[in-house]
Amino acid sequence: MLYEINEKALKLESEGKRIIRLNLGDPDLDTPPAIVEAAYDAMKAGKTKYSSSYGEKPLREKIAELHGVKPDNVVVTPGSKWGVFATMYLMLRNGGNVIIPTPYWTAYGLIAKSLGAETRLLKTELENDWKVDPAELEALIDKDTKMIILNNPNNPTSKVMDDKTLDGIVEVAEKRGVTILSDEVYGAIAFTKTKSILEYDGGFKHILTNGFSKTFSMTGWRIGYIVADKLLVDKITRLNQITINNVPIFIQDAALKGIELRAQIATAIKQEYEERAEVASKMLTAAGFSFSKPDAPFYVFPKKAGLNSEKFTLDLLDKGVAIAPGSSFGDYLEHFRISLTAPKEQIEEALNIICEAPK
Amino acid sequence: MLYEINEKALKLESEGKRIIRLNLGDPDLDTPPAIVEAAYDAMKAGKTKYSSSYGEKPLREKIAELHGVKPDNVVVTPGSKWGVFATMYLMLRNGGNVIIPTPYWTAYGLIAKSLGAETRLLKTELENDWKVDPAELEALIDKDTKMIILNNPNNPTSKVMDDKTLDGIVEVAEKRGVTILSDEVYGAIAFTKTKSILEYDGGFKHILTNGFSKTFSMTGWRIGYIVADKLLVDKITRLNQITINNVPIFIQDAALKGIELRAQIATAIKQEYEERAEVASKMLTAAGFSFSKPDAPFYVFPKKAGLNSEKFTLDLLDKGVAIAPGSSFGDYLEHFRISLTAPKEQIEEALNIICEAPK
Repeated sequence: MLYEINEKALKLESEGKRIIRLNLGDPDLDTPPAIVEAAYDAMKAGKTKYSSSYGEKPLREKIAELHGVKPDNVVVTPGSKWGVFATMYLMLRNGGNVIIPTPYWTAYGLIAKSLGAETRLLKTELENDWKVDPAELEALIDKDTKMIILNNPNNPTSKVMDDKTLDGIVEVAEKRGVTILSDEVYGAIAFTKTKSILEYDGGFKHILTNGFSKTFSMTGWRIGYIVADKLLVDKITRLNQITINNVPIFIQDAALKGIELRAQIATAIKQEYEERAEVASKMLTAAGFSFSKPDAPFYVFPKKAGLNSEKFTLDLLDKGVAIAPGSSFGDYLEHFRISLTAPKEQIEEALNIICEAPK
Repeated sequence: MLYEINEKALKLESEGKRIIRLNLGDPDLDTPPAIVEAAYDAMKAGKTKYSSSYGEKPLREKIAELHGVKPDNVVVTPGSKWGVFATMYLMLRNGGNVIIPTPYWTAYGLIAKSLGAETRLLKTELENDWKVDPAELEALIDKDTKMIILNNPNNPTSKVMDDKTLDGIVEVAEKRGVTILSDEVYGAIAFTKTKSILEYDGGFKHILTNGFSKTFSMTGWRIGYIVADKLLVDKITRLNQITINNVPIFIQDAALKGIELRAQIATAIKQEYEERAEVASKMLTAAGFSFSKPDAPFYVFPKKAGLNSEKFTLDLLDKGVAIAPGSSFGDYLEHFRISLTAPKEQIEEALNIICEAPK
């Protein structure tokens, strides 16, 4: 229903209605000008030719440095979603199943479906602080299980996994020989330290997918990367060769500039979103919603007992606010997702409407 | 061996050796500055967010106008290769076979292999002016045949299919209910009129893949498009949603600027490459090579009886010239491919070495 809501919001806007759009994870902040200038400089310097399907050396080196790995373990992708697709394509196109804790980003399930792979959902709940139970996870694993997908910090809960839970998941995965694909696209701007999958066993049994979209407000640029063992990096590169070929070099130069200015950019983004999360949390608490306070940008995933969030979402659209129903992320009809991707005043205005609505 | 030659050429260059690189279809011409400026303007205007997986409306409209179709029949892709992959993924991932006349661009075969589909090659020969025999084609079709891939103008021969041959292929395909995927990426800059697959039956039984790389010297930008019936356009868009998401809007704006300046840009490119083809043809003829004179940029595909082009290519590398052996394009060991993607003086210099070598 996520795409349906978005299309309806766009349609209402095109009819002249004002909609506060809190339904997508697309930051309202502009790409920092220094990043734009780096892209322009690269274009003018003629960096507009075919290039390596691995990604450019300087960028791979910088990413490797960031994660404490070797450049050989890095491949640049057109967005972290491509990293997810490519990995799933390589591991699941001949069948098998993938285990995904919920609530989850629907793209994982849609990719599995497209590849003809089975998706096994593992439900976690607000009441249990969104914790994955390793025993429940293990019960879902069988001989056809090829992969576990984690999204840490999580979309839609903005929850960062505690170390003990992550340790437990990794232990089960390693015991049963199942690879973890860890999507940590919100990790660099989390409000609390997020333990990376790379911190386990040199990291190369498992796979990290990451992107520049969220950390550097570069959603539309389509650039991300995979960190994995060299064998998988080579395989993804060969898949890149027969599909997207390369991420434009000028976009890679822009991303490189982003990493150079990382401390400054990420700090500003983190601060802005922490303030927004604070505002939203106060208003939602006062209105009697239950939720876990965000550990990271961009989302809050509140619940109200008895709520039909699909109806709620459609009603809110008529009142000029776009959010996403919880059912878009699994079996969570009583929840809804608010993206804090608008200026604070708009968030406050929208929350006043949201908090009034279900009464 | 295509990638091996390229890696070896890059390695020799990094060791300080001068290599005239005529081994790839990457034009030496820079992207026209007006296109670069259009991208920069779009970035500065904040066109850096997530956008439609169909592509932007103004670009789809312009492409539709160019081909005499509706915008609904157009989806923007990150390069024409993505168009090929996406179409093959949708039609062949559950098995079946694809028929490809040779010599052929190896990516088609590699994609089929990756998808687990069978490739059936249909050999054409210089001595028969590279004509496809419709009867031979029909003999290869069975109930599992999902697609025929044409590359018109052809890489590596630079041959444009004559209307009668194309008519014959389309007739067989339609009689047997097989879709044609026509890769016409060199079509807009061909020296002779290239009949498009879209000229048959409204075109929507068949599929066109095309790109901006060759026509506008935008290889590294990764932008192309598919023209097909709306059903397939919708399916490719859904695949885009779970993979690349969108081509950056600023790249789409750049491509739009390219189309606006198309007459001027394409004419200049055509003229330049026609002159290069003329020079190469004269020298190759004088040296006793057999070949069909290029109808389009960028390649010549000469033959010498008894030549082992793999050995020949490696020997030439040591003499400072990179070309591609014919075996990279099918069963053509006596042929080799020269990409005329260097300034005329360099082409002459390289051809002097090439023409001396096999004596």
